[in-house]
Amino acid sequence: MNKLPERIRIKDIARLADVSVGTVDRVLHGRSGVSEASRKRVEEILKQLDYQPNMYASALASNKKYTFCCLLPQHEEGEYWSAVEKGISNALRTFSDFHISVKTIYYDPYDYQSFAKAAKEILELEPDGVMVAPTVQAYTENFILRLNEQQIPFIYIDSNIKELPGLAFYGQNSRQSGYFAARMLMLQTTPTNGTVIFRKIQQGVVGSNQQENREKGFRRYMQEHHPDCIIYECNLHAESGNDDTEMLYKFFKLHPEVKSGITFNSKAYIIGEYIATQDMTDFNLIGYDLLDRNVACLKNRGISFLIAQQPELQGFSGIKTLCDYLIFKKDVKHTNYMPIDLLSIENIDYYSNVNYANQD
Amino acid sequence: MNKLPERIRIKDIARLADVSVGTVDRVLHGRSGVSEASRKRVEEILKQLDYQPNMYASALASNKKYTFCCLLPQHEEGEYWSAVEKGISNALRTFSDFHISVKTIYYDPYDYQSFAKAAKEILELEPDGVMVAPTVQAYTENFILRLNEQQIPFIYIDSNIKELPGLAFYGQNSRQSGYFAARMLMLQTTPTNGTVIFRKIQQGVVGSNQQENREKGFRRYMQEHHPDCIIYECNLHAESGNDDTEMLYKFFKLHPEVKSGITFNSKAYIIGEYIATQDMTDFNLIGYDLLDRNVACLKNRGISFLIAQQPELQGFSGIKTLCDYLIFKKDVKHTNYMPIDLLSIENIDYYSNVNYANQD
Repeated sequence: MNKLPERIRIKDIARLADVSVGTVDRVLHGRSGVSEASRKRVEEILKQLDYQPNMYASALASNKKYTFCCLLPQHEEGEYWSAVEKGISNALRTFSDFHISVKTIYYDPYDYQSFAKAAKEILELEPDGVMVAPTVQAYTENFILRLNEQQIPFIYIDSNIKELPGLAFYGQNSRQSGYFAARMLMLQTTPTNGTVIFRKIQQGVVGSNQQENREKGFRRYMQEHHPDCIIYECNLHAESGNDDTEMLYKFFKLHPEVKSGITFNSKAYIIGEYIATQDMTDFNLIGYDLLDRNVACLKNRGISFLIAQQPELQGFSGIKTLCDYLIFKKDVKHTNYMPIDLLSIENIDYYSNVNYANQD
Repeated sequence: MNKLPERIRIKDIARLADVSVGTVDRVLHGRSGVSEASRKRVEEILKQLDYQPNMYASALASNKKYTFCCLLPQHEEGEYWSAVEKGISNALRTFSDFHISVKTIYYDPYDYQSFAKAAKEILELEPDGVMVAPTVQAYTENFILRLNEQQIPFIYIDSNIKELPGLAFYGQNSRQSGYFAARMLMLQTTPTNGTVIFRKIQQGVVGSNQQENREKGFRRYMQEHHPDCIIYECNLHAESGNDDTEMLYKFFKLHPEVKSGITFNSKAYIIGEYIATQDMTDFNLIGYDLLDRNVACLKNRGISFLIAQQPELQGFSGIKTLCDYLIFKKDVKHTNYMPIDLLSIENIDYYSNVNYANQD
């Protein structure tokens, strides 16, 4: 119901105020050449319509087009980043009257050179604003410096690089999220049996700052509360394949006493499906994000808990913030942490994972 | 940003469409006596403005006033129901242009006669719509029958009585919530030590359907998963006083082995504060709702987990639904379950407990 009548045009305002289109334009831009009476009348109408004059001034009067670029990890349909892209599309639709367009360029999260290459491509496009899911700081830095040089405002999504501040950040506090996850995992773990971290890794690269930071937060909790609990690592290949099964088989054969584990990427289903197949009902796995296959595992008890973080809202908010800043000249809140939501088979059916509520 | 320009008046529409106010009124009400050209022009403007004609038709043309009554449990400021009332006030503000008013009448949740008396008071006021937090079915029934007789639509908030269906229901699935809570509690309980349910009770009355149903769900989980775990009951007086401390002291002296407990009302802080005072750091308590004193306990570890249920959103949505149904003639969704959110010291700072997102 609360939709803005985005189709109102400057000539509608003129008609309402009984003035010319030129007069409305002058009032919107604070230019002279308008009688006091006309100005008052226009301003009154704008107020009645709950107009944000700047917004319409920029969008309607200048007719300027805004090109945004997103730099995101490569992914397949249905994976975590699809939800982020859904939010981006939603924002595109919501702000379609303001001539915005979004071009998304992808990088291989396991190949730092790929990030640099994609970044270069974006810089050459000279966009008006950028949203980036950064890779490690060392390989993100050059891109950020160039954006600053070219005075292109940018939003961090997913993870933040505090040392290279952007216009805003949307994402979970990854360390705190890992810290929380550790507590939840240890509620299901006999510390003397140890626990295990499952990773997707390629040539030593974990693939995202979020995963690294979650693991840091996880390890901090373990250090503080269970310093004697052994934390095993089971590194699966980033490129999923049949050898996952073999590696999991080997791990569990070697460590039959380990009855709990966690994965900080969004592909918990790889382990969850293995657990379900093997009927390892006493193994407690915690994963991240509400991918369909993850939720299916939650429901058949291959996964014990999932932690969610509103990816669609992140994508939407990032683009909205670029609009707020560039088009509507609004103040922008820098740090926007997403909730750390715990889902289990008992409460998942009541979870609403898309909300654009507090975005006004 | 997505605010509706509620101050647009019928004469603005007339001006935009170059027709008379009477013509707009006729179009809005589907009456005859309008040329095809004028009707088309008005409808086009309504569409451009993203108007919901019914909404404005009822509100602007008839100038009808709507009186809603809420029947809620008595409470003190800062208690659970304050959050619900905040949501009601918010709805009143949001829909203020549609001449709605809300009168709230309170009943003593531990006295069924009090409910009947308050209900009578409401019926005498002949409101246009009602929102009620029902008491037990036997004592709610008469009120509902009378509302149906008088054809007054009503919303259930907090708990639902399926046998006496209302226009809509907003609240948690209490049984499922108790079922979920049991799982979370048992993660922190050695079953052979037993666990305890703390109640606020007065002359055998628990004070809310929600609490009763949560306990039912809790006991179902226990029956299914830990049938041998003894569930103690510690019944505190509904009127809080110094004897709470004494009763808790007695309980823990009698059952020092019990290291976990739960309370299904929103006053977990009574037990949480006792636990903190006694430095019972090994006791794990689960409670409900984000009252300031509960959150304080969560932060000083007197409470292990809190389960939240968006009370402000419930209050807002109830009133909004009455508006949707009576004023805007919209379809109304009957069953609206709130999320079952788990909060701990690790994730509470990232929780946003007010969202009007999915309410459109």
